[in-house]
Amino acid sequence: MRQVSDMDFVGEKIQLAQVKLTDVTEWNDGKLLPHEDMLAAEEPLEIRIGDVPLTVTMRTPGHDRELAAGFLLTEGLIEDASQIMQLRSYVTTTGGKENGVEAELRDCEFDPAQMQRNFFAASSCGICGKASIEAVRLRGLRAPMGGFRFDPEMLCSLPEKLREAQTVFSHTGGLHAAALFDAAGNLLVLREDIGRHNAVDKVIGWALLQGLAPLAAYGLLVSGRGGFEIVQKALAAGLPLVASVSAPSSLAVQLARELGMTLVGFLRGRRFVMYAGAERCEATSAATTG
Amino acid sequence: MRQVSDMDFVGEKIQLAQVKLTDVTEWNDGKLLPHEDMLAAEEPLEIRIGDVPLTVTMRTPGHDRELAAGFLLTEGLIEDASQIMQLRSYVTTTGGKENGVEAELRDCEFDPAQMQRNFFAASSCGICGKASIEAVRLRGLRAPMGGFRFDPEMLCSLPEKLREAQTVFSHTGGLHAAALFDAAGNLLVLREDIGRHNAVDKVIGWALLQGLAPLAAYGLLVSGRGGFEIVQKALAAGLPLVASVSAPSSLAVQLARELGMTLVGFLRGRRFVMYAGAERCEATSAATTG
Repeated sequence: MRQVSDMDFVGEKIQLAQVKLTDVTEWNDGKLLPHEDMLAAEEPLEIRIGDVPLTVTMRTPGHDRELAAGFLLTEGLIEDASQIMQLRSYVTTTGGKENGVEAELRDCEFDPAQMQRNFFAASSCGICGKASIEAVRLRGLRAPMGGFRFDPEMLCSLPEKLREAQTVFSHTGGLHAAALFDAAGNLLVLREDIGRHNAVDKVIGWALLQGLAPLAAYGLLVSGRGGFEIVQKALAAGLPLVASVSAPSSLAVQLARELGMTLVGFLRGRRFVMYAGAERCEATSAATTG
Repeated sequence: MRQVSDMDFVGEKIQLAQVKLTDVTEWNDGKLLPHEDMLAAEEPLEIRIGDVPLTVTMRTPGHDRELAAGFLLTEGLIEDASQIMQLRSYVTTTGGKENGVEAELRDCEFDPAQMQRNFFAASSCGICGKASIEAVRLRGLRAPMGGFRFDPEMLCSLPEKLREAQTVFSHTGGLHAAALFDAAGNLLVLREDIGRHNAVDKVIGWALLQGLAPLAAYGLLVSGRGGFEIVQKALAAGLPLVASVSAPSSLAVQLARELGMTLVGFLRGRRFVMYAGAERCEATSAATTG
């Protein structure tokens, strides 16, 4: 497989994920066609605090420091950007690539033993992890601050903006996308990753390093499902709104309701469903129901 | 939210995942419409060996013992069904629901301390976990046994069979599906879950408890992406073929090639792409290329 690095251009808010080219055999209506195909790169990223390993996540390479910053915030290891002294990429011992990020933190109570226990108890990952709303409550997550409200017409314009900003590859190749937008409907940043939670951490990490957190004036748009882990990470970043083009899970809805976040699903065309926090929609007070 | 349990019918290979009903507010072209919506249930499942906790995974409730059996096999804790003495559901302390499965194993070298270290080092989860091919090599996974070959026409018939066997809810609600099929194109079992890797573990666990493992005479079809973790789990179960309707990742392709598994992507209509192991396709030797 060959690495395609010069395609990793940056501009117009577009971030093309790293891809690899490989020889494949296509079967098409009875004919065999050998050709070259693009694949989403997937490599492990090790995150450590000083020399203490914290986690390993499978991610699409690129924006690794943003991913690490986002992970530190959304998993509750830090509360704001000032606690990050330094984020340094390093070459891991296996593979010989820059697949590690080392964080130097301050004013951070980090007990490796406690962390290990937590990670064991809750499996640590965006999908499996933080196994219950109880565990989230224990983390002391708070309701989003501020008076964020949104225009439904603005919201409906977002999926098209997301598609325009995504790469062709991500349309066809199954990458997950996450984007941050403001109340005027501007997309501030878009990140794509083979892992849904990584795309979210990269977006939140970008905002954290830009000095925008807590993100009380922004919303998060995700290409996939609005799951529990996404809502949890968004809450940790102070986001008042999470919107997705697909369905949320029951636990995601429960968490959003308990903590007063607006959760929107099935954002498609001129329609969306509000599962929690409908009061932030400007139409809710103005329009008649039924 | 209300639990919808009587919809959890079983028959004709259909397994409707548990859903919950909840009040939502739909915005539709300027009108607000309150109504009831179905959500995929998502609850933590704790798996323990005796009284030692092993992992917690967020899953769609149902087929929990199959999920646990599959997890034990695909994560390398056991090698065959005879090592499972008993699988018992239990009520967890938080939540008061049957969200736990306790396994009683024999001839199984299980060191909780070692397990904790591994889980910490590799994050344990289907998505994040087992962070490298090196780690997989260390597990001693072997190439699939036997002379499984497949007819491309048979393969093309599978997505339609999968859709027919899936529930309407899973089409719209973003559940992942996994199914086991034989060389004649028969779907043996279909499982749906909010977690892709759980759907695979449920299918493999079902087959394990049916006495079918190692699954050298079968293929696995997944509704989503053919990722690294899916290939790894399939290899652990002895499956020679994994097919998906979407793209694989680069690491999944690499692993499938190294271990001689057939990996098919973009299985749509009368077309598919073979990323590894094309020699198992009956057309490869027969047809002309180009």
